[in-house]
Amino acid sequence: MIPIISIVGKSDSGKTTLIEKLIPELTRRGHRVATVKHDIHGFEVDREGKDSWRHKQAGAHTVVISSPHKVALIRDVEKDLTLDEIRDKLVQDVDLILSEGYKKDVQPKIEIFRKEKQKELLCTKEDHLVAIASNQKFDMGVPCFGLEDMKGLADFIEKEFLRSKRSGEVSLNVNGKPIPLSPFVRDFLTKTIKGMLSALRGCETSKRIEIHIEGEER
Amino acid sequence: MIPIISIVGKSDSGKTTLIEKLIPELTRRGHRVATVKHDIHGFEVDREGKDSWRHKQAGAHTVVISSPHKVALIRDVEKDLTLDEIRDKLVQDVDLILSEGYKKDVQPKIEIFRKEKQKELLCTKEDHLVAIASNQKFDMGVPCFGLEDMKGLADFIEKEFLRSKRSGEVSLNVNGKPIPLSPFVRDFLTKTIKGMLSALRGCETSKRIEIHIEGEER
Repeated sequence: MIPIISIVGKSDSGKTTLIEKLIPELTRRGHRVATVKHDIHGFEVDREGKDSWRHKQAGAHTVVISSPHKVALIRDVEKDLTLDEIRDKLVQDVDLILSEGYKKDVQPKIEIFRKEKQKELLCTKEDHLVAIASNQKFDMGVPCFGLEDMKGLADFIEKEFLRSKRSGEVSLNVNGKPIPLSPFVRDFLTKTIKGMLSALRGCETSKRIEIHIEGEER
Repeated sequence: MIPIISIVGKSDSGKTTLIEKLIPELTRRGHRVATVKHDIHGFEVDREGKDSWRHKQAGAHTVVISSPHKVALIRDVEKDLTLDEIRDKLVQDVDLILSEGYKKDVQPKIEIFRKEKQKELLCTKEDHLVAIASNQKFDMGVPCFGLEDMKGLADFIEKEFLRSKRSGEVSLNVNGKPIPLSPFVRDFLTKTIKGMLSALRGCETSKRIEIHIEGEER
């Protein structure tokens, strides 16, 4: 599953600028990054009068504009999507999602703090704060990086969120012994179990699955 | 799987206008429509200087702009996507995809033809032509509708492409007798089988699954 980190901070604290500097550092290291921005005011689909704008005006639920290097999709939603929903419904083929804002969402957060702009942090560890980027030191039990320390931030993100590019690993133990799995069987097993679980309420998207079955030997 | 129909025709034959009139007719009947437009020139992500534009400029592979009623996603691709790829990677929650153009794609096509603009049709049945919208009658072995006949076109699309809104039905027969399935069990069964099959090459997206198992009775 693609990890999500929210870059949060007061308005005008420099969230967009931080993301702008962090993306090239992560990209240089071989990671593909998606960003998510909330826009309470909505936005325009293409320019007025253009074909896809006309499609949307006519009542299309979804409009796709495809070109050789980029694809755009605009679709109706019934409510604001959570970051989880955005990941599951929309985002593919990236290693990391950085959201700008989304302070109230449950994802891990890096808060940007400028001592000249505010007195207190917005988030605590209870809000899933995992790091701080600031020009003031904090002793909050989470790492604190300088506002320009993209290397430090990227190292932290790699270590904590991108370490296992091999997510999707499966291990099977039977009677205490690990059972080696061929790629086919591993895939078969994973997809069968995920398929089954996806029918259960609350399991629609399964992050980590741990199953323990204890049975009497007969 | 969401059906795809391409509206094709010479440039300036009125493809966008036809789609603009067809969407409300289909929407009125309860169908959700997505449209796909090819834009060889590419397009801009948001407006210059806006946050999501800055994210993209900084090298984000994917940019999502989320609002309470609409979501936009812009992502890099390595090549022009086919309509199949667009459906499988991007489009969800609609009943029908109408593409404007995509004459060379393999999807079913409705050609719009104006006798004052051209001499010959662009497509034949070999190009997956399934209907014509024209101000001239054709005897091509496919239905021919008037340029304003949205009711006729929508009836045709419903009959040929949207007939079973109840796709996703499951029936189970054991020893020749139908077994009633509760919604839970139906879902469980479907998702388990789809999960298993998705591991098999060529079954990544399963349209219709028919399984017959014949076994000796013992």
